[in-house]
This record gives sequence, C-alpha cells and structure tokens, in this order.
Amino acid sequence: MVDHADLAVRTLGPCRIDSPLAPRLGARETTQHSVVEEDRILFDDTISMIGQRGVPLDQLPSLEPGGPRKKIYFDPAKTRVGIVTCGGLCPGLNDVIRGLVLELSRHYGVRRIVGFRNGYRGFIPEFGEDVLDLTPEVVMHIDDEGGTILGTSRGKQDPEAIVDALERLNINILFVIGGDGTIRGAMDVVSEVEERGLKVAVVGIPKTIDNDIPYIDQSFGFQTAMSEATKSIHAASVEARSAPGGVGLVKLMGRHSGFIACYSTLAKDDADYVLIPEVPFALGGEHGFLENLRHRVEERGHAVVVVAEGAGQEHVEGEEPGRDASGNVRFGDIGRLLRRKIVEHLDAHGVENNVRYFDPSYAIRSVPANPYDSAYCLRLAHAAVHAAMAGRTEVIVARRRRRFVHIPMALAVSRRNHVDPLGDLWMSVLEATGQPVRFG
Amino acid sequence: MVDHADLAVRTLGPCRIDSPLAPRLGARETTQHSVVEEDRILFDDTISMIGQRGVPLDQLPSLEPGGPRKKIYFDPAKTRVGIVTCGGLCPGLNDVIRGLVLELSRHYGVRRIVGFRNGYRGFIPEFGEDVLDLTPEVVMHIDDEGGTILGTSRGKQDPEAIVDALERLNINILFVIGGDGTIRGAMDVVSEVEERGLKVAVVGIPKTIDNDIPYIDQSFGFQTAMSEATKSIHAASVEARSAPGGVGLVKLMGRHSGFIACYSTLAKDDADYVLIPEVPFALGGEHGFLENLRHRVEERGHAVVVVAEGAGQEHVEGEEPGRDASGNVRFGDIGRLLRRKIVEHLDAHGVENNVRYFDPSYAIRSVPANPYDSAYCLRLAHAAVHAAMAGRTEVIVARRRRRFVHIPMALAVSRRNHVDPLGDLWMSVLEATGQPVRFG
Amino acid sequence: MVDHADLAVRTLGPCRIDSPLAPRLGARETTQHSVVEEDRILFDDTISMIGQRGVPLDQLPSLEPGGPRKKIYFDPAKTRVGIVTCGGLCPGLNDVIRGLVLELSRHYGVRRIVGFRNGYRGFIPEFGEDVLDLTPEVVMHIDDEGGTILGTSRGKQDPEAIVDALERLNINILFVIGGDGTIRGAMDVVSEVEERGLKVAVVGIPKTIDNDIPYIDQSFGFQTAMSEATKSIHAASVEARSAPGGVGLVKLMGRHSGFIACYSTLAKDDADYVLIPEVPFALGGEHGFLENLRHRVEERGHAVVVVAEGAGQEHVEGEEPGRDASGNVRFGDIGRLLRRKIVEHLDAHGVENNVRYFDPSYAIRSVPANPYDSAYCLRLAHAAVHAAMAGRTEVIVARRRRRFVHIPMALAVSRRNHVDPLGDLWMSVLEATGQPVRFG
Amino acid sequence: MVDHADLAVRTLGPCRIDSPLAPRLGARETTQHSVVEEDRILFDDTISMIGQRGVPLDQLPSLEPGGPRKKIYFDPAKTRVGIVTCGGLCPGLNDVIRGLVLELSRHYGVRRIVGFRNGYRGFIPEFGEDVLDLTPEVVMHIDDEGGTILGTSRGKQDPEAIVDALERLNINILFVIGGDGTIRGAMDVVSEVEERGLKVAVVGIPKTIDNDIPYIDQSFGFQTAMSEATKSIHAASVEARSAPGGVGLVKLMGRHSGFIACYSTLAKDDADYVLIPEVPFALGGEHGFLENLRHRVEERGHAVVVVAEGAGQEHVEGEEPGRDASGNVRFGDIGRLLRRKIVEHLDAHGVENNVRYFDPSYAIRSVPANPYDSAYCLRLAHAAVHAAMAGRTEVIVARRRRRFVHIPMALAVSRRNHVDPLGDLWMSVLEATGQPVRFG
Repeated sequence: MVDHADLAVRTLGPCRIDSPLAPRLGARETTQHSVVEEDRILFDDTISMIGQRGVPLDQLPSLEPGGPRKKIYFDPAKTRVGIVTCGGLCPGLNDVIRGLVLELSRHYGVRRIVGFRNGYRGFIPEFGEDVLDLTPEVVMHIDDEGGTILGTSRGKQDPEAIVDALERLNINILFVIGGDGTIRGAMDVVSEVEERGLKVAVVGIPKTIDNDIPYIDQSFGFQTAMSEATKSIHAASVEARSAPGGVGLVKLMGRHSGFIACYSTLAKDDADYVLIPEVPFALGGEHGFLENLRHRVEERGHAVVVVAEGAGQEHVEGEEPGRDASGNVRFGDIGRLLRRKIVEHLDAHGVENNVRYFDPSYAIRSVPANPYDSAYCLRLAHAAVHAAMAGRTEVIVARRRRRFVHIPMALAVSRRNHVDPLGDLWMSVLEATGQPVRFG
Repeated sequence: MVDHADLAVRTLGPCRIDSPLAPRLGARETTQHSVVEEDRILFDDTISMIGQRGVPLDQLPSLEPGGPRKKIYFDPAKTRVGIVTCGGLCPGLNDVIRGLVLELSRHYGVRRIVGFRNGYRGFIPEFGEDVLDLTPEVVMHIDDEGGTILGTSRGKQDPEAIVDALERLNINILFVIGGDGTIRGAMDVVSEVEERGLKVAVVGIPKTIDNDIPYIDQSFGFQTAMSEATKSIHAASVEARSAPGGVGLVKLMGRHSGFIACYSTLAKDDADYVLIPEVPFALGGEHGFLENLRHRVEERGHAVVVVAEGAGQEHVEGEEPGRDASGNVRFGDIGRLLRRKIVEHLDAHGVENNVRYFDPSYAIRSVPANPYDSAYCLRLAHAAVHAAMAGRTEVIVARRRRRFVHIPMALAVSRRNHVDPLGDLWMSVLEATGQPVRFG
Repeated sequence: MVDHADLAVRTLGPCRIDSPLAPRLGARETTQHSVVEEDRILFDDTISMIGQRGVPLDQLPSLEPGGPRKKIYFDPAKTRVGIVTCGGLCPGLNDVIRGLVLELSRHYGVRRIVGFRNGYRGFIPEFGEDVLDLTPEVVMHIDDEGGTILGTSRGKQDPEAIVDALERLNINILFVIGGDGTIRGAMDVVSEVEERGLKVAVVGIPKTIDNDIPYIDQSFGFQTAMSEATKSIHAASVEARSAPGGVGLVKLMGRHSGFIACYSTLAKDDADYVLIPEVPFALGGEHGFLENLRHRVEERGHAVVVVAEGAGQEHVEGEEPGRDASGNVRFGDIGRLLRRKIVEHLDAHGVENNVRYFDPSYAIRSVPANPYDSAYCLRLAHAAVHAAMAGRTEVIVARRRRRFVHIPMALAVSRRNHVDPLGDLWMSVLEATGQPVRFG
Repeated sequence: MVDHADLAVRTLGPCRIDSPLAPRLGARETTQHSVVEEDRILFDDTISMIGQRGVPLDQLPSLEPGGPRKKIYFDPAKTRVGIVTCGGLCPGLNDVIRGLVLELSRHYGVRRIVGFRNGYRGFIPEFGEDVLDLTPEVVMHIDDEGGTILGTSRGKQDPEAIVDALERLNINILFVIGGDGTIRGAMDVVSEVEERGLKVAVVGIPKTIDNDIPYIDQSFGFQTAMSEATKSIHAASVEARSAPGGVGLVKLMGRHSGFIACYSTLAKDDADYVLIPEVPFALGGEHGFLENLRHRVEERGHAVVVVAEGAGQEHVEGEEPGRDASGNVRFGDIGRLLRRKIVEHLDAHGVENNVRYFDPSYAIRSVPANPYDSAYCLRLAHAAVHAAMAGRTEVIVARRRRRFVHIPMALAVSRRNHVDPLGDLWMSVLEATGQPVRFG
C-alpha cells in the first residue's frame, strides 16, 4: 500500500521569489494560472481500492500537482541548469530536451543551460566529454530527428564525481532523463548533494519505452513505439501469408512488461500469438505453444507470433543471465530460441515451414516522436521545469490519470508497471488473437 | 456542480444471466476479471475541486466503472443488435463498428447484428435504405480504411419512426456513434422506447473530432486528426517561407473548442498565431491581430496563422448564423474572412504579401485511425458492449482519467469541453507561438 | 521536326583546363569515367519516327550527352557561381540547390557560390534582397524540408539589371531552376551577356510540377507530387462513400497537361472520372459529363471526379483569362465551376448529393522530395554542374530516355509535353475509370 | 554484342482476329491507338555504342515495341489464362496480378483466369495446391497490401508436370512473374509446350528487387524498396550518433548488384561507406576498410556502413556457398561477418564502440508498392497482356529507355545488370560518402 510518507515531496527550501511568469499576464491572471499551493490529488480514485471510507478526504494518500507556482525557489538570473539523457534511445528525447530549454529560457529567463554528453559518463573527466551549451537556437529543430543530441550511454558513474562536476559548473538544477537505473543513479546524486550541504534540485523525467514505470499514464514515446511496432507485425503477416507454412516471428521490446506487444497487436489485428513476460507459457507438451502453433499452421497455412523480449526467460536454457552496464538483467534471446524451436518442431512433424524473423528494436527506438508524443514531451518538460524552479528535488514529473504530478523517486523505482493478466488489456489481446488463456 | 443524481446510470432491469465470458476462463478467473458490481470511481480526485471534506468517501459524487459483469441482462442467443453512425466523419468510426461486432460475436455469442445506413435516416422507410448484416467476416478489415462503412448523415429523424424500425427488426440493443446532436436524438429514442414499455438498451459511443465532449479524456480519432493537422500547418510554413511576404493561413476544425488547433501547434512548432473560439480577439486597431501580423511579416518576412473554424465569429459580418441539418449552428467562414482581411490590411500598408490558404478539414476527417486510436476504439467498443449486455441504457461509455466509465447521456450533453484560457495547454500555446495574451 | 540546328549546343569556348576530377581517380580511370567528347545520342530511336532510312547514322538528329569532361572551360579556383529558383514550389528544389553546391565544392573545388533570393527579383537592387552564401555546411540538410531556402517569386525582370548584378558579383556561371517562363528569362540574360561580350554560362534545370517540359523523362518532383495527389483522391473517395449521394471532387495541378491527374488516378484506382486539358468535354446534354455523373451517382450512390486545373477552360464563362506575373495564362477556376454545376444539376434532377471539394495544390507542392526524386535531383544537379564547367550555355540539362543530355533552351520552350489522347497512358486511364471516351 | 537474332521475338502464329479493343473507340481511333506492326526500336541509341555507321538504319539491332495490336492471335472468348508468382517478395506483385486480370477482363473480355498458388509448385499435384479463380472483384483491392495473394515459393519444378497442368486446365496463356531462375523455368516450359505441339503463350514479367535484370529500366518495386531502405539507413545514423563510438551497420538486398545500396544512399545522405558486389574491397591492412573505419570513428565519433548482401563474398570464410531451392547461389552472411570484424578491430585498437546491426530485408520486401510503382506495375501488366494476346511467347515485357518492349527470355537471362564502377552512379556515391575509391 502506498501511504502518505511515500508521496511526500522534498523541497530545497521555502519559495520566496516571485515567479517571472510571463510578465505578459496580469497579476490576476498569473494567480489564476498558478497551481493552488496546498492542493492535492487523491492517489486512488476507485472506492474499492481506497477502502478507508471513514478517513477524512484530506487524510487519504494524495499527490502534489505539477505546474507553475506563484513563488519559486531559484532566482532565474543566477540559476545554472544541467541536462543528461541516459540508457537506450526512446522517441521524444530531443523533444524533452527542447521543451526544457525553451521553458527555462522563454518562461523563466534562465540563461545558462548545459547538456552533459553520453549519459552519466558526461560528468566524469576521464571520458573527456565536453558539455554542450543549450540555447533556444540550438534546440529549435532537434525534434525533427530521433535519438538524442546529447548522446547517451548505459551505466552508473560515481556520484561523488558527478557532484564534483556539478560544483565545478555551479549547477543548481539537474534534469535526468532515463529509466529506473538512471533514477536510482539520480538518488545517489541527491544523497551526495545533501551530504555536501548543497542546494541542487534533481528532477527526473522518466523514460521507458516499455511503459513499465509504475503509477503513471503511458510514458513518453510509447505511442510512437507502439505505432512503429505495428508495421513490423504487419510485415510479418504479409511474409507469412505469401509463403507455404509461413510463420512470421516478431520480437518486440518489453523486458519486464508486455505493453508494446499488447497494444501493437490490438491496433492492427495481425497476430495469432502474443507472448509476454507477465504470462508464463509452456513450449512443449500437448497443450504447449509449439503444438498449438503447429495446428494453426496446418489449418490456416500460416501464423504470426509476437514475443516481448522478456517473455519465457525460463526457456532460454544455458544462458547465465548477467547484467549490462546499466545494471539491467541481460536477457537470453527468446526470439532466436523460438525461431529455432519452431523450425525444429514443425520439421519434426513434417510440416513445411518458412519462418521469417523480425527484430525491429533499433528501428523503433530511433524514430522521431509522433505529433501526440511530441506535444506530450513538451508539456512534460514544462512540468519538470516548474517543479525544479520551485525547489522540488528527488522527484520525477509524470502524468497520472491525465494530471501532471510530482512523484518521489523512491516510489517510482519501488516496483514496475505490468500488464495485468486478468485485466481488460490482456483479455482484449486474448480475444484479438484467439490464443488459449494458457499454454501447458 | 455535478451531483449524485447527474451520475446515476439507468438499467433496464436486474442482471440474472451468467455472462458467457470466454468459457476459456475458469470460474475463479472470471470473477477476478469482472467488475466489482458495487464499485464506484470518484468523479473528482482533486481536493480543491471536491471541496466537501466532511462528507464520507462513498457519498461523494462518483461514476459507475465500465467493463464486463459476472451477470448480464440480455440472453446473447436471443439478442439482436443495431448500430448507427451519425454526423461528420472522424477517424476510427470503422474501428468502433468492428470492435462492437467482434466483441458481441466472439465474446458474448450474439449472432444477429445489423447496421443502419447513412445515420438516423437509415431507420426511416421513405429513404429506402437497406440494413447491412454485420458479421465478423464483413468487419474484419474495415479498419484499414477511413470513413464509415455504414455511411452517415446529419440531422434528426422522428423518434417514433426510429422505434418502429427497432420493433420491426426486434432489436434489443442500439449503439449510436455520434456527437451531441446524435446523443440528444438517442435520448428521444429512449423516451419513446419507455413510453412503449420496450426493453431496448441504447448506448452511445461519443464521437467528436473537436474533442468537445465534457468529462472525458480525448475522444477517439482526436490524436489522428491532430497529427494530420500538423501536416497542413507545416505545409503552410514551407509555403510562407518560400515566398516574399508569405503568409500561411490554416483553418482547422473546432466549432466551439480549439483543441485541434492547440495540440497540432504544440506538436510541430510552426505557427506564429493560433486563434480559437475560447479566446476572443480584435482584428483591427493598434493592438489588433492584423497590425500584429503586419509587424511580424515586416520583421521576419513570413508568418503562419492557425484558426479554428469557430474562432472570431463576431467578425463574420453579415452572415446570419443558421443551423445545419444536425441542428448545429452554421458558422460563418472565418478562414475566408481572415484571408481577405489579411490581404487588404497588408496591401493597405504597402506590405508585399503572398497569402496561401489551407482548408484540410475533409482530408483530415477521412484518414484511417492511427495505431493508438485504433486500439483505443477497440477497447471503447468493448466497454460499450459490456454496458449494453448488462442492460445499461441512456448512457455513453467513455474514458475518464484513464478509466472506462458510464456517463448518463443527459450529463454528456449538458455542456462542452473547452480549452481553458488560463490553463496549461493555452499557456504552452502562447509560449510556443510568442503571440500576445490578447489582441486589442 | 527537330533537326540538327535545333539540337546544337552553344559553348563559351574551347575546353583547355584539366578537370580536377576527384584526384582520387587515377588518370586511366578518369578517362574511362569521362564522356567521350564527340559522342552523340540519337534524338529518336523508333524507326517509324526517324523515317530517314537512307541517311548515315551520324547525320541523324542527335543530342550531346551530359556528364563530366576530361577538359573543362572554367578554372574552378577563379569561378564564381550564382543560383536562383523561380516560379511555384515543386518538391526537390532544395535537393537541386544542395546537389549543385556539393558538386561544385567537392568535385570541382569551386569556393564562391551565392544564392539569389526570391527568384529573378533577387538580382534587382530596388527589392533589396541580400544574396545568400551557399557552402556545403549551409546546404547539407536542406533536403529534409520542402520549399526552397532561396525563396521564389513569379515574373520576369529586366535582363540588363540581371546582368549588371552578375557583373557586380563577378559571376561566371548562373544556374536557373524554373519553368518555361524562367527559361525564356534566362535566354534574355544570355542575349544580354553576349551583347556585352561576357563569358558567363547560363544553365537551366527545368522545373515543372505538371511534367509539361517536352523531350524529357519525368521532371523532378513529379513522382512526389503524383504520390501526394493520390492521398487527396483517396480522401475524396472515402468522403464520397460515407455520405448519401457523395461526390468527391479533386482539383489537381495541370495547367496544360494532365499527367498528375492521370498517374495519380492509375496509382490508386479511386476515381470515376478524370478531366484533363488535352481532352475537351461537354458539360451539358444527354451525353455530357453532368448527365453521365448523375447516372453514376444514382446507380452506385457516389462518385469521384479528378480535374486538372487547366481542363475545360471553355466552360469557365465570363472570366477573361489574364496572365500572371510569370506571363502564364491565368486560368478560370474549373474546380469551383464544376462544384457549382454538379450541385445544380443533381439538385435539378432531385438527386440528393453531398459534394466535397478538395484543392490540395499548395499541400502537394510543399512536401519534401521522396527518396527517388531526391536521388534524381542530386544526379540532375551533377549533370548541370558538369555542363556549366565545360562552358555550355543556353542549355538545360535533362534526362531523356534515361540518359542525361543537354537540350538547347530554345528547343525546351518550343512546345509543351502533353498526354496523348490516343496513347497508352490515356487508354489506361479510360479503362481504370470506366468513363466514356468522350462526353458529348 | 547483341545482334538481330538475340532480339527476334517468337510468335505462335499469324494474328488474324480483330482486337476487341474497347469498342468504345471508333475504327480510326483504334488504328491510331495500336502499335504499327512493323515498327522497331533501336537497341542502342548512342553513336559510340552502335558503331556501325555504314549500316542502314533498319538493319541495326532493334526491339519489337510493346502495346496493343489491331489483330490478335487468341480469341478472347475461348482463352484461358494462368498466372504464377515465384521467388522472394517484391513490392508490386499484387499490382501486377491485378493489372493482368483487369486488362484481360475489361479490355479483351477474357473470362477464365486462374492463379497457381505458391510458385511453380502450384502446378504439381503432390503439393495439393488449389488454383484460385481470379476475377475483377477478387483482385480489385489487392494492391493495398504487400506480398502476393497467390503465395510464392522458390525453386524449379518438372516442366513436364507443369505442362500437364496447363493441358488439364486448357490454359492458352501463362504469365510468370519472377526473377532469372523463374524465367529459366519458363523457358523449359516453352520447350515442353513446343515438343507437344501446343499453342500456349508464355510471357514473363521480370521481378527483381535488386534491379539486376539487364537491358531494362528499373524493375518494378525497385523505387519502393529503395525508399524503404533509406529509413533503415537513417535509423542506423540516428543510433550511431546517439552512442559513443556508434557504428550503424545496414545490410541491404543486392546479391549481384548494389543498386539498392547506391540509390538509397544517394537519396538520404547518411552513409559513410557503401560496399557493393561490383567493387571488391580489402578488410585488413593499412588501407583496408577496417582501418579506414577506425579513423573515421576516432575522428567523428560515429559511422554508418551500408553493405549489399552480395558484397565481399571473398571474406566470408569457411562457408561453402551452396545453392538455394531456386538455384541461386547461397551467400555467406557478410553482414554478420562485418559486425564481428568491426567489433574485433575497434576493440583491438582500444576504440570504444557500440555497433548496431540492421537487417531490414523482409520488412522492405513486404510493403505495398508506392504510387509510382503501382502505376508502373499496372502499365507493365497491360503490355504483358497485349503481348500474350498477340501470340508472343518466350518473351518478357519490360520498359527500356521509357518504352515498353518485348525482350526474348534468352537475352534477359544472358547476363546481369550491374552498377558500373566507372559510371555516374558510383561516382555520385563516392562523393556522397567520401569513402576512398578503393580499400587496400
């Protein structure tokens, strides 16, 4: 259960500076436009989940809303800002960078913004990475391209060295854009910042192409990624239907959570099977996946299989799962395993087959954000800037039930968001594919 | 203020039939998968908006959640279903039709589903429209195309004649897909049904390309429409930059609400001005729009103007706003007016100009849903089928704060959803365009 | 008949300088790579068109091939180059500019290249246009966008003033990118250059979105334009099919030639009627277009009409066709006329109708070149640079039957390329639409 | 040298039946519309290639033009037609099938058209493939999808068994759509047909995504494929630029010919290296590819490499090149080899690297034809139908220098079309990439 303590947001100190909120707005409009300081948003809104009917409303667990404040903590004229992007590519990274820079510059009048290159290693002298000055001119059109102009890398770096770099550059606000490993790294930076008694706000914009950050609506780039993924599934379907015994096999992103596999399957009804990490499956046996597939191929002549990269890890024999530079579990390759097993099984039963394997991960990750994600990234960046200028730290900004809110970093990495095997989404997938509820 | 009575959902009678919920699920899974019957979702979740801190939680205004029930009202074997689409085209119509038919057939085992052609006139004998049998085979690939396979038309028809048709065809459930005029029409049908003592459920799926239905998250097709709109804005920008004194003028949908204009502007930062119905503006005068535009063209050599069709209606002189066949106010053409005024103003001040006018409305309305909207339509249709099979009537299904809920039709047409001139969205637009807070 | 004199290419003088052809190539490779100086390409290759069977092969009309020469006329170190784009937008303009600059810089080592802004007025002091320095850095990514970074305008300017500007800037080579009006303007420049005894090469890259330049394969941007046009035709088809009596009417580019209308119709078989300038048609009468359309709408319920802007000019009553700034005939608006006539005719016969009008011209013109056109523009630009460096003048470069060739400007503007009403293309259109061979 | 004998087209017999050419055309128009029977098109049109200046024009090697004839060989009412698609997928297959069926039905009035399923095995009883009746209704919308509705397979089948099937079904015309293996198979069918004294026309529509069929302009689907390929190259570029030591490696189609690699590189200037079968390269050594790449990565931090699948086969050690079911040489995987070698080389020199490998072959092959290819396929199919109805056999139809012509099958498989290492195309690629003329 999430409680009050989990949702408490840390602040560097009282906000005493008037926001330079677009001086174009009159005083009255500025007030109306700003967030009501003491307002809160209920963490849950479903009676059966809240449970505590006797508790007064304002004592229920609740979140701090995001948005502009009338009073801010940092003086824009003296504020120096750093931005870093970490981990794998995700559509929208450049949109977030652009949104941060434009909001800091145009709205608050912050002048000095730098980007650290290639993830956390950009802070470490021995890598010799230069920092990049980020002005409105530099970032104006970067959203036309995928990737990140800052570069990225996986892996943690020494928090002391990172804070050394922040001190060297007199940075007051650090925006980190990355996944749960990155956010854990940011928490270490916050600890080091505190130990030194510094006043540096560290605000995260959560990035996860798998949509596995908990407590938030879809993560940025997710809709773009899921749209791209439908193209590969459709290509697999075309290939499968054009060859005798055609089997199209598509491995999609999804280390712990099968959201991309599920949504892209629903969007374009081409898949016959979807395999996700949340729903274990037997390969062999009379009711196993392979036999079911065999019948399908024999009856219809073709089949399309979508598998999330984290699915069926128990079947990836003989591969000692290590960890990559980001500390993420390194996954055995379920895609290649399935390809081999499918060919062997169909061959063994004398079923002619033409298996086509698709691994579009890099192609998906590198596209620019679609218009929805682009507008979403811009607004998310605005919320992050408002939070940081108001002195919030160790928080991520996120949209939860369509509201921008502040979520403490510790809560954001406390668990993962998963596809509920009994929820509407998975039920819709089962109906769309016609696959059995369980294999084995 | 919305209160309990506004949110009460009508039901045809007690649900006594076991849901034929995919018999593939075991009894225990079926239970877990189904909606808890007495559950409710708080209408508001923001403390400052709820206000009533002393009121016990379960007495606050709340909504009925959507989703499958363990017990249903209609016996699938005996149920006959009708579907009708009304009003202007919107991306996703075919996806909704397809989702309804597949869920009724595959999930509940309903056999007889018919589509009425060309909107409400499909019920009226004198138009001579035939009904279309809707089977899974017929609808399987209709989502590849925009438009609606049922055809559509504007305007009301006599509710008695409509109910005559429902009786003739023994229809128990009617799904209406349309905007607020259509929903009002459906309410008249419900009245007539009641008067005759019939047991017919009437469930709406709200369609509004303008996103102006209140109390719900973005309406289906909105993201597709907004993405298409960015293309026209970008084309206008390319044209404007390639000619001396180039002005690109884009008229977008948005009769009462400027959401498409706002979001498409944020997604691709090409516009210098956005004019929406919610924010009045002066044309003439020192601080009016035309003078501001003149300065911009003189300084930068070009400008891009985005105008929602319902903006600045006070300027459309000499046109008596009538009503179209749907009862919607017929709008004067602000696009053509602006084109004329801009040319006149720039000519009068000796500013060379090349004004290019874009009116992409039909082109936007006719595209197929993008993958996000496609998956969204499917799930919305599932929710509508669950509601109807459980005997709900005079409701629309909608997603509110990411949850599928039932909203009484009367509430859904009680007001419109608007861009808040003091909210984050409009503030972001002002920053993106750099236009003044007010003209005049 | 085209004869030898028509095909003779003018040269500023003998080529005496060794080409700095990528010194990376060895001498032998350079020789093999270069065009054989005295080579020629037969103007016609069809026996029935050549006719002159007794004439020796090398006395038949023939063209000079394009491509790099071993000896060139201009010394790259001393050469100054100007580029200008004129007339309406066409996909690929930026690709051509980019290709010219890169080839001049990288291949020949030319250092000083300037762009004149906004067409021929960029040469005229009173317009106050600055010139733009064009370096490889400036042009590297301009092909990502439609339009032209140089801007464009319609209309001629005084050739004396143009040559004054060339002299002021010491320009030796001028590339003009434009349609037949632009090429005529370039011929005037050549005359003035000669009169002054200057050594300035003037080379044209023909631009015509209508594909109406004679003697060449498809003009650059044509495939992109025709692809975009299919989208509007398809949108019209979706709209027409979704409304009772739906008629989708699409006006496409094509002042004198209906190529875009024909090709886009063939690509996506949505149209029921195609009307082009080359094939006159009766509107009224028993066998006229309107009656035929009426029958189609009555039988099938909908129809799609594609009309080229130059079609049916005889029907555009009461509009005195003037000439625009480029000297092009100004066309009466056949699209709006047809819209009105169709509504009147169907109304008069009591046929319910919903006519949707599409005018996508600006939207089509402003898109970036597709990959094919992009590669084509690059190669066309290379050929233009080779021609100019070898001292060719008063020529256009073009691809004819898949070979890059030099065509004298006078020949290129001597007639227009038309759709042959008895050729394969129009026959295929008639079959695709099912429309009668003639109306009236 | 190609001579008269190579270009002579075989005919089943004299054409004595009046073409049912759209009776809508009058007699005079039909005459003008038809091909002049004795006309010819010069095989070469470049003086330096023809050489034979003394030879009378009509004795030079020349081709028979394609198109409709006034007299035809087959009586449409009695003609039965078969269609088969063979080999790998290529954009446009469904467009060709559709074009054949529509032209046969609408233009000539042929009633009975069947499709054989899954390539040549569709003729062989033991595979148990049913034939598919092809009517205008069946094929009307198949061009919306990639792949082939007939299915396809690789490999030859016994010509006797194939002709048995033709006899069983009374087929008079067989259209084969496939590459050089398929055309060789068709030649065996022609031999068997002759041996039996049958009157069956066998006409090929050459399909080669690699564009390696000689003597013709670009093969159908090539432009679509090359456009798709640019997306992968761009994704590789985005990935490479976003990671320290990023190397994007893209393997494209091109077994013997590097056209797709070259054109897609020119279209979007993202690649630093292009490796094609026509230009051998050294991997190791001071001037080898790997050292050059290392310098590039060290200097710029990233690089993009495009490799055609048939390039550098001499480096694919220890793989005995076998032949696949179509008799094509089976290629060692240069893509995976390069990936391994690049990592090893950069690691060995202590250069940090992140190599991303893209293999988009199936994704490219399965897309639908773009509008240009779609219109091209339709017209190619029309030419094939005209050829077959006029009794031509053992020919392919193709566009050569923008004219549809008949080319004897033997000539079409006598050699391959290659990128000329001294031609303009490769020179443009060298300039675009900046890579050295040779490695090693």
